[in-house]
Amino acid sequence: MARPFHHPAVDEITLDGILYALSDPTRRSIVGKLLADGEMNCGQACKALPPSTVSHHHRILRENGLIRSERRGVEVINSARREEVERRFPGLLDAILNQTAT
Amino acid sequence: MARPFHHPAVDEITLDGILYALSDPTRRSIVGKLLADGEMNCGQACKALPPSTVSHHHRILRENGLIRSERRGVEVINSARREEVERRFPGLLDAILNQTAT
Repeated sequence: MARPFHHPAVDEITLDGILYALSDPTRRSIVGKLLADGEMNCGQACKALPPSTVSHHHRILRENGLIRSERRGVEVINSARREEVERRFPGLLDAILNQTAT
Repeated sequence: MARPFHHPAVDEITLDGILYALSDPTRRSIVGKLLADGEMNCGQACKALPPSTVSHHHRILRENGLIRSERRGVEVINSARREEVERRFPGLLDAILNQTAT
């Protein structure tokens, strides 16, 4: 059986980790899609990339507290931890993800 | 004569670079002090750290467009590029630097 995913508790989420995780355009795009569409599997989040790359980006987002991953059968379904990140770092996610310049 | 510092133009400043540069507590602290106190030399910005470490952090901040460095005699004086970063990424600096959790 696959190992369960580890998700940091809210008070373990760090500003360093959030900023590092979002310092990559693919990862910002994944979080933006999850915020807009609710939950989706890794493939739906970034169709154009190799699975290993997609998996790597999801791992960094998960380890830094931005997304929650859950196995359902053979699929891994991801969702954004919006409320928790917002509670810990008010206004931060929107200030980053709503930028129009990149 | 020492080489002049390179500073990216405003439209060369990237969201990736800003987030990466600020994903470190020492670098956030340097930018916060420069915003509060105007300009200062590297030693004033972080007295407790070895000069090579301080220099490294200032270089990352400078290369990513967050600070401007200028030689005056034997000193290097730094200042935050607040207006330029604000113009390119409205609200971003405050949303990051005003967080109380870390």
